[in-house]
Amino acid sequence: MAKRKICVVITARPSYARFRSAMEAIACHPDLELQVITAASAILERFGFPDKVIEADGIKIDVKLHTMLEGGNLITAAKSTGLGIIELASAFQTLSPDAVVTIADRFETLSTAVAAAYMNIPLVHIQGGEISGNIDNKVRHAITKLADLHLVASEPARQRVIAMGEHPDKVHVTGCPSIDIAATVLKDPEIKVDLFKAYKGVGPRIEWHRPYLVVLQHPVTTEPEAAARQADETLHAVHESALPTFWFWPNIDAGSDATSHAIRAYRERCQPENIHFFKNLPPEDFLRLVYHSRAIVGNSSVGIRECAFLGVPAINIGDRQRNRDRGANVIDVPHDRRHILSAIHSLHKRPRPPSDPLYGDGRAGKRIANLLATEPLSHHK
Amino acid sequence: MAKRKICVVITARPSYARFRSAMEAIACHPDLELQVITAASAILERFGFPDKVIEADGIKIDVKLHTMLEGGNLITAAKSTGLGIIELASAFQTLSPDAVVTIADRFETLSTAVAAAYMNIPLVHIQGGEISGNIDNKVRHAITKLADLHLVASEPARQRVIAMGEHPDKVHVTGCPSIDIAATVLKDPEIKVDLFKAYKGVGPRIEWHRPYLVVLQHPVTTEPEAAARQADETLHAVHESALPTFWFWPNIDAGSDATSHAIRAYRERCQPENIHFFKNLPPEDFLRLVYHSRAIVGNSSVGIRECAFLGVPAINIGDRQRNRDRGANVIDVPHDRRHILSAIHSLHKRPRPPSDPLYGDGRAGKRIANLLATEPLSHHK
Amino acid sequence: MAKRKICVVITARPSYARFRSAMEAIACHPDLELQVITAASAILERFGFPDKVIEADGIKIDVKLHTMLEGGNLITAAKSTGLGIIELASAFQTLSPDAVVTIADRFETLSTAVAAAYMNIPLVHIQGGEISGNIDNKVRHAITKLADLHLVASEPARQRVIAMGEHPDKVHVTGCPSIDIAATVLKDPEIKVDLFKAYKGVGPRIEWHRPYLVVLQHPVTTEPEAAARQADETLHAVHESALPTFWFWPNIDAGSDATSHAIRAYRERCQPENIHFFKNLPPEDFLRLVYHSRAIVGNSSVGIRECAFLGVPAINIGDRQRNRDRGANVIDVPHDRRHILSAIHSLHKRPRPPSDPLYGDGRAGKRIANLLATEPLSHHK
Amino acid sequence: MAKRKICVVITARPSYARFRSAMEAIACHPDLELQVITAASAILERFGFPDKVIEADGIKIDVKLHTMLEGGNLITAAKSTGLGIIELASAFQTLSPDAVVTIADRFETLSTAVAAAYMNIPLVHIQGGEISGNIDNKVRHAITKLADLHLVASEPARQRVIAMGEHPDKVHVTGCPSIDIAATVLKDPEIKVDLFKAYKGVGPRIEWHRPYLVVLQHPVTTEPEAAARQADETLHAVHESALPTFWFWPNIDAGSDATSHAIRAYRERCQPENIHFFKNLPPEDFLRLVYHSRAIVGNSSVGIRECAFLGVPAINIGDRQRNRDRGANVIDVPHDRRHILSAIHSLHKRPRPPSDPLYGDGRAGKRIANLLATEPLSHHK
Repeated sequence: MAKRKICVVITARPSYARFRSAMEAIACHPDLELQVITAASAILERFGFPDKVIEADGIKIDVKLHTMLEGGNLITAAKSTGLGIIELASAFQTLSPDAVVTIADRFETLSTAVAAAYMNIPLVHIQGGEISGNIDNKVRHAITKLADLHLVASEPARQRVIAMGEHPDKVHVTGCPSIDIAATVLKDPEIKVDLFKAYKGVGPRIEWHRPYLVVLQHPVTTEPEAAARQADETLHAVHESALPTFWFWPNIDAGSDATSHAIRAYRERCQPENIHFFKNLPPEDFLRLVYHSRAIVGNSSVGIRECAFLGVPAINIGDRQRNRDRGANVIDVPHDRRHILSAIHSLHKRPRPPSDPLYGDGRAGKRIANLLATEPLSHHK
Repeated sequence: MAKRKICVVITARPSYARFRSAMEAIACHPDLELQVITAASAILERFGFPDKVIEADGIKIDVKLHTMLEGGNLITAAKSTGLGIIELASAFQTLSPDAVVTIADRFETLSTAVAAAYMNIPLVHIQGGEISGNIDNKVRHAITKLADLHLVASEPARQRVIAMGEHPDKVHVTGCPSIDIAATVLKDPEIKVDLFKAYKGVGPRIEWHRPYLVVLQHPVTTEPEAAARQADETLHAVHESALPTFWFWPNIDAGSDATSHAIRAYRERCQPENIHFFKNLPPEDFLRLVYHSRAIVGNSSVGIRECAFLGVPAINIGDRQRNRDRGANVIDVPHDRRHILSAIHSLHKRPRPPSDPLYGDGRAGKRIANLLATEPLSHHK
Repeated sequence: MAKRKICVVITARPSYARFRSAMEAIACHPDLELQVITAASAILERFGFPDKVIEADGIKIDVKLHTMLEGGNLITAAKSTGLGIIELASAFQTLSPDAVVTIADRFETLSTAVAAAYMNIPLVHIQGGEISGNIDNKVRHAITKLADLHLVASEPARQRVIAMGEHPDKVHVTGCPSIDIAATVLKDPEIKVDLFKAYKGVGPRIEWHRPYLVVLQHPVTTEPEAAARQADETLHAVHESALPTFWFWPNIDAGSDATSHAIRAYRERCQPENIHFFKNLPPEDFLRLVYHSRAIVGNSSVGIRECAFLGVPAINIGDRQRNRDRGANVIDVPHDRRHILSAIHSLHKRPRPPSDPLYGDGRAGKRIANLLATEPLSHHK
Repeated sequence: MAKRKICVVITARPSYARFRSAMEAIACHPDLELQVITAASAILERFGFPDKVIEADGIKIDVKLHTMLEGGNLITAAKSTGLGIIELASAFQTLSPDAVVTIADRFETLSTAVAAAYMNIPLVHIQGGEISGNIDNKVRHAITKLADLHLVASEPARQRVIAMGEHPDKVHVTGCPSIDIAATVLKDPEIKVDLFKAYKGVGPRIEWHRPYLVVLQHPVTTEPEAAARQADETLHAVHESALPTFWFWPNIDAGSDATSHAIRAYRERCQPENIHFFKNLPPEDFLRLVYHSRAIVGNSSVGIRECAFLGVPAINIGDRQRNRDRGANVIDVPHDRRHILSAIHSLHKRPRPPSDPLYGDGRAGKRIANLLATEPLSHHK
């Protein structure tokens, strides 16, 4: 019997980070053939050429597509999605996959879903049924309604997908494959490189064998004008805490230019001596860095998901992760420097939270590959 | 207070036919300003230049956009949607509407929804919550998850939209504005023109003062290869019935070329002397023709919706309208010439069904305009 | 040494017909690898799926791209060109050819030229330096200025390319490869199939063993509104001549819908009993049909080029081939039924013209392949 | 008589800077109506939102179009051009201008030319017939072959346009309107603001009342990989000269990311105390700064054009301006720090060059408006 051709479309670096263990499991599965398309921000230098990271991991990319418009605003988000549909349709025609996999909820993700759904290619959605605080919700649920098979991270997510009218037989809890990497990291937690040499970045060489913070703060899509102010609040709090801090640049999104600007302006103005800025780290070393930190600060889902499993406190700022299922490791604060600082000060009084399998047990990748190999694939719902 | 700018995007002739009374009500409302964009098949000669029909009705079109790729297949459907998003984003930037209205469930409709949702423009969806038998379902429900305000045709539709997780306050039953035209037609049912002179078409001049049929059969999107055979079954049945018949060409969709081909081939081969073929009629005269007919035959929603109100039997073929709420006027048959013919023969034994307000009471247009003028408009859900 | 990868982009059926012998020579050349992309009208049913014709000839197509917008007007011509650039850029990125070949002067051709030129891929232009009567001139000469290597059909063409400022070393006279097919046909001129069975078409089965005509009339791009009237003039003249006639549908272009309309309307109205209409014939049988005809009528370049070599009279209507180098076989007439008819009547008094190698000697394909294998390839001019 | 609608498409900040005086003259002309479209880099923050600069000058922009893909490489240059054609076609359909004006030779410029030419809108090309050292040449000459009216900067340019086969009646020497601004500046040469306060930038506040340099170095399109090294050579030379220096960031182009990177890396590494970096200045103050400088250094056309008129030495590096007509103010050097430094050292021994009207006399804008008002406009060549 011919192998099923499974086409995974990666449109952003975090999607690859999250889905990598599943891609490896697909590539190794005897009944599956892995096809990979990279597009949107996943082939841009500004994000550290994620395509080259993928290739360095030994995964062949079949097609690369430039689909991201410059501008970083709401209009270009819409247009990038449109251009993505156009180009992905051609790529799907060339690759003729048996199923297409789209991951999560970012705006470019919808390109993949629309192109596959319209072309009658069975569409598999990873991480439906979650809830967050902005346009991502609309996009994620719209993809759910276009998708034929739903591989979700948790039981609450499964319930929500079914509540939206999807057939229970088509919704499977696999856990999130990002936790697979966290599970690997737990078994081998030591960072073996000199971070500053290996990953450069800008800012002073900080003393990270003392308690330190990791910051990852994304702009909130529907409030671009507030992004700069929000970044400023966090910068002030972290600067004033005087704790050694690794700050990671935000991903691409409406408002990201404002966030980047705010960060650059703060650096020039205040020259914070306790913050080192990174663009990207390989996910293992990133998670190792998070694992050894006192806390992760910002609004990334890493604080909610991976940190639940790793048992690392997450100071979660603002609404971006609102309503998302969360474990005991999460401390919610508003975009206010005093609240953020106070949460940082509270850390040394709290015991380290235990590991929580809320988002997965470390075996999601293999589960996903097995389901892709055995589930009936159909574009009829 | 500034008038609310309501931007209606028309991407297909049937959408305009369906929504026209609402557009007139918006244009007349003291607190609203109507903006109109025509795109996709709504500016093509093959569909009788619907844009010129709109302008002939006295409605100004602000922007016309060529977004339809040639090919009539699944790939070009996807790409036309992508191109639609790109161009609509620019048009929305120029027009800066306070709300965007998108109608129903055809593939190009999703372009409007994605562009508006991503640009944080409140999105109003007309006719969500319905159920049909193909890709339209996926598209319609995906639009529901992107939309901020839902103006639906019936109470069952309202229940379904809420069941998918939308807030009840944001879902209003208005009835379908297409019924408004049917209500007008009921008050003035006489056709005042010579159909053959006014609307030409091809085929013999048939005797339509005897009992006659109207046929409207669209290709079923997900089975393009079967479209030709399905058209053939209906052609044979109608030809054999020997009843005078007005046959309307299908709309554009994957497979429409196959349907058109089958029709042309049958005409050349069998020269059916009882069938006259039309491309398009103005909606009033079309509904008058339907009203006086013995039955409508095919798989159009007109049989389910307008004919419920008009009290006209509908011989509904195949799965396209499957699961759609239906009145007592509907006779369901498979794509099989014997079943179709037998249903036609059964007509003279059935009493004419009574008028049924299942899809509206004839006042939807004004209700829609009033809601657009008074409901809070927001892109936050 | 690695073979040079030569990427030929086919965007219209006539381009393939013209370039086929060169593609076969490239595929057979020991130092070359042939890559093929089909796009625009070359993958549409309306033109008889030229891509399937290519594959039936044993040539593998690497990428197929839907890039043609529906509408057949000036706006969609522009937009199809834009979409072509976008998609070809991605395809070139995937195929990474050593040179790209673009043929002649139709609007979609410029897509290939722009994408290749901007991506620093050496661009080879076939059939530069010719002169015709409309937008094609602008497009052809613009491509000349973007191209790095010019393989032209005739010495006058070479002089014109050099006069536009191109370096003489980069301009080679190869003859037109379409003449290669004509040369093959001359050696084997007999049609072995029943034309009406093999190629169907519509209209009566005509008696073509008597003197007959072949008509091929394209709309003139810059005068869409006049296209219908022009088609009408030719239809009247040919009908009145009462000579058996094979009429070929026009290619896609601004105005082609008008031409097709005019033809359909005339057929319905006058039912010309002496005209049979074809969509497409394989080029060999088409040229055989032309070879045995009394004359070709219309405005196709076949009358100017292949018919010079075949020694067939060409009644050339209107400005489309204006200024093109021409042999003694050409009779120029305006778009006027009387002039066209009078030219048809004059045919039986004229001796058949001799074969003229003005556009090639039948060995162009091999010459082109050899130059592609040996010329320095560079994108610096 | 209706005013002629003249649609000017601005796709890059320098094009506006160059053409501004002509736009003002068109807007003031009694027989002309000015339409303005901004697209590509002309609406991006990275270039200082040139659209807002235009609006601040009191010019209304009719349509803004996001057409620039992110990536800054050769592929995205091609795709941005394709997207530009698509969107401009729609905009031209809405605005229905009597003529479209496209400026110079950058890759996005070709979008305007293709869309207008295909849509049969008379195309006016500004600054044809010049010669530079890269892809710009191909683009400029291709536009010449698409254009219907050529308004060129100098007599040698006119000769070259005619030599490419354009009709002499359609080629007019107007001078370059950028010189109009230089002429204004000559009459009022004083800078009235505190540069560092008004235009910020990064780097030390330098002492510019001493002899100082202005640097403007663009990446060379066809050699992206070399861009970083070339920037480095100039940085070293200027740093070593120890002269106060204003360095302007390069425009967007393939390789611009590499250039920007090289500049940032040098700044972080060497912290050059004599260089202040600016993004953009209003053209008047920019030219005033140039006028008072000891020399302009780099590869911008400003050194060749405006500086000829202003009588300012230009140390012109590398091939970018190769073959361009030049006055006595130009000193050509290769991309080599020693040659650049030696040229800087030679400056104090050279007398200031006299003003040279090679590229215009300061009255180009009015000449252009008059020609647009009076020349026959046609799309037939």
